[in-house]
Amino acid sequence: MNDIFNLVDKSKESYINDLIEFLKIPSISSDPKYKNEINRCASWLANHFNSIGIFDTKIIPTAGHPIVFAEYNCKKENAKTVLIYGHYDVQPVDPIDEWIYPPFEPQIQNGKIFARGSSDDKGQLFTHIKAFQAYKEIDDLPINLKFLIEGEEEAAMNNLEPFLRGNRELLECDAILISDTEWFSDDTPSICYSLRGIVFIELTVYGPDRDLHSGSFGGSVDNPIMALSYMISRLKDKYGRVTVPGFYDDVKELDNEEQYEFTKLDFDENKFYSSIGLKYGYGEIGYTTLERIWARPALDINGIWGGYKGEGSKTIIPAKASAKISIRLVPNQKADDIIQKTVSYIKSIAPPTVILEIKQFVGANPVLIDRNSNAIKSAYKAINSAFGRKPVFIREGGSIPIVEQFVHYLHKPIVLMGFGLPGDNIHSPNENFDLNNFIGGIKASACFYNEFSQF
Amino acid sequence: MNDIFNLVDKSKESYINDLIEFLKIPSISSDPKYKNEINRCASWLANHFNSIGIFDTKIIPTAGHPIVFAEYNCKKENAKTVLIYGHYDVQPVDPIDEWIYPPFEPQIQNGKIFARGSSDDKGQLFTHIKAFQAYKEIDDLPINLKFLIEGEEEAAMNNLEPFLRGNRELLECDAILISDTEWFSDDTPSICYSLRGIVFIELTVYGPDRDLHSGSFGGSVDNPIMALSYMISRLKDKYGRVTVPGFYDDVKELDNEEQYEFTKLDFDENKFYSSIGLKYGYGEIGYTTLERIWARPALDINGIWGGYKGEGSKTIIPAKASAKISIRLVPNQKADDIIQKTVSYIKSIAPPTVILEIKQFVGANPVLIDRNSNAIKSAYKAINSAFGRKPVFIREGGSIPIVEQFVHYLHKPIVLMGFGLPGDNIHSPNENFDLNNFIGGIKASACFYNEFSQF
Repeated sequence: MNDIFNLVDKSKESYINDLIEFLKIPSISSDPKYKNEINRCASWLANHFNSIGIFDTKIIPTAGHPIVFAEYNCKKENAKTVLIYGHYDVQPVDPIDEWIYPPFEPQIQNGKIFARGSSDDKGQLFTHIKAFQAYKEIDDLPINLKFLIEGEEEAAMNNLEPFLRGNRELLECDAILISDTEWFSDDTPSICYSLRGIVFIELTVYGPDRDLHSGSFGGSVDNPIMALSYMISRLKDKYGRVTVPGFYDDVKELDNEEQYEFTKLDFDENKFYSSIGLKYGYGEIGYTTLERIWARPALDINGIWGGYKGEGSKTIIPAKASAKISIRLVPNQKADDIIQKTVSYIKSIAPPTVILEIKQFVGANPVLIDRNSNAIKSAYKAINSAFGRKPVFIREGGSIPIVEQFVHYLHKPIVLMGFGLPGDNIHSPNENFDLNNFIGGIKASACFYNEFSQF
Repeated sequence: MNDIFNLVDKSKESYINDLIEFLKIPSISSDPKYKNEINRCASWLANHFNSIGIFDTKIIPTAGHPIVFAEYNCKKENAKTVLIYGHYDVQPVDPIDEWIYPPFEPQIQNGKIFARGSSDDKGQLFTHIKAFQAYKEIDDLPINLKFLIEGEEEAAMNNLEPFLRGNRELLECDAILISDTEWFSDDTPSICYSLRGIVFIELTVYGPDRDLHSGSFGGSVDNPIMALSYMISRLKDKYGRVTVPGFYDDVKELDNEEQYEFTKLDFDENKFYSSIGLKYGYGEIGYTTLERIWARPALDINGIWGGYKGEGSKTIIPAKASAKISIRLVPNQKADDIIQKTVSYIKSIAPPTVILEIKQFVGANPVLIDRNSNAIKSAYKAINSAFGRKPVFIREGGSIPIVEQFVHYLHKPIVLMGFGLPGDNIHSPNENFDLNNFIGGIKASACFYNEFSQF
């Protein structure tokens, strides 16, 4: 591995330049205006695979955004196969004014590269591509690779699921490797073994059939914004618990070992909150902050709108108001069950003065990974070799819907070997990726190819 | 008065033709593109005063649109003076596609004249000008008249207030006559004796210093939209009462006579609600719908916004959320007092997890007119003579800020003798004015000149 590590260090600048090209493409998946950029990004990625010697590369159309699939078979007989998953699409960039650099003009500053998608997930998935490239330059790989890079991870679309369902043979493998998670802290390499699931509800309340003059009607009709606010305020009780009946029925409490591991982590609560400009946390009574994020479900309002928001005043009672709600799920909650219970509850608390319209989407079920698989053991060793430190086992509050789909359709060990850092600002302005982790990630990926081939 | 009434009937066509000329000028005050038309309208009006024998007429420039001021002094000694207020500016015409006739090409159909400004307020203010003209043709007036016709009523400008403040001597009078309100129904002449006031509060709650990933933080921090919703849901109690301490302290309850008069009005509650697409009303327990609109204060949210409202989902905990609040005030609430109490209360219910930013604006104090003034008595008799029906006394849920400014600066009895009808579509496409009310309004105005001169 030493030769590979040396080559990676020597090639640093060239790898970063390739990454910059990748990051320049505004592949925002949730906004139809960027459809052409999504397609351009998929093409760029396919060409890039070709350029480093993976010729068996396809752009596979879906009903939504295309999948880039690339396959490399090594010369070794009976070699194991690793399926690498990543996503080339990125989050929207609003609020654009808060970016120091334009989100699609990558800039390097203090050892970090700033751009939308730098950490989530273009920079992270690129480690495995560059690991292949470096490995191949020194020696043939001891393992087969399949790259499955999708373009819908940040959007409420789900065309990868039917693809997985319909292509189990194409995707056959011995382990699934994904880098789309974060380290616990800047100097704590981490392997993630649990993800929260997610469901979405968009709620619109309709009142009068048009905006009304608040002078001629104010006091005599219910205000849809007030009705919606009332409903939102009833979604949690004064202990911070979600009030939907049966919401916690299937929640698996942490076992003693996990609880102990959580307490051993160097988690600085004050720093955690001050880093996001807050004095106080807020959550479910009876749980620590880490438990709240990693092992407890959470309900949030992602957006709200209704009536007049322009300059000055417009004296109306609006005809309607809407909110976007998301719920993070933990093992063993089931997305379908929670969405059904929540919608029923919302209907039950709707005032008689409004009419509801509810849209619902299942994002993902939660995931719990077996920490004793060979794949996890390989990742543990690989991280230790590449970064000189043993990783810790952590959970992740976010969701990677595809992980749950891999669990469901492929039944193979999964490894979440992420290289993001807590300050990467993913989904926020000024997203960035630490270049030491980019280079270290390339090394760790190469080590993983080597370690896992030996089991 | 019979001679005058006969002359008015005989001159009907000529008066309507003059009104048509007035209505043809697109004097839209809120759109700077129409500045020339505003000026043209002011000139037309000043010329018209000259043409009917009111030679003491001035176009007075302001920082915004000009005021037309015209004065007539009768020959009678110690004659009383009536100040007539109106506005020659009109609302914008959007959505233009919904107009049956072009808004500035007046058309007569079924006894109504269709044009922007026909009811609000050119047609109504014109009644007083034509009443002068008819009266003068028969006999000298027994009263002095001052016309104050402004050009900013429909725009968010306020150059009339400093004019009132600086010109109390010029505006000295014994009563103020305004026709810019509606009848209770098509066959119910009405005198409006109370207006609600209005104040505005814009509230922003700030949480984390940026939008957060709802996976990485969900469950551990308060959500600004939920905090705002919680606060909004606490602005009213379960009896529909505003919860701000001291909010109702100065509210003057209706006296028995007023309450009785309200019940005598032909108000069809089912029709009222079905006309706005609602099954149920909602308001303060213990009050009828008319009482809620006319005699009780009302708090409404005019707009709310925060987080993501685009297509699909964005899994964030937003950094902030905002709402626009308006409060309609009734006698004897004071705008300054209510805004201060409300802001204090909002601060007191703000969760410790958010920081507040509050903007506040006073719109207008409420107005309560003494129904026993000689001016009101004169209007009552005048309407009865002109329309053959006794008027009812009504209140108005909306605000006419200028009325409160007249109260504040001139301290004279005010008469709101409007001739509009509920179907006039003011501020909407197909604005119209009933020509019977135009001609009846001219007669009522002439009678008012006569009646009031005798007190």
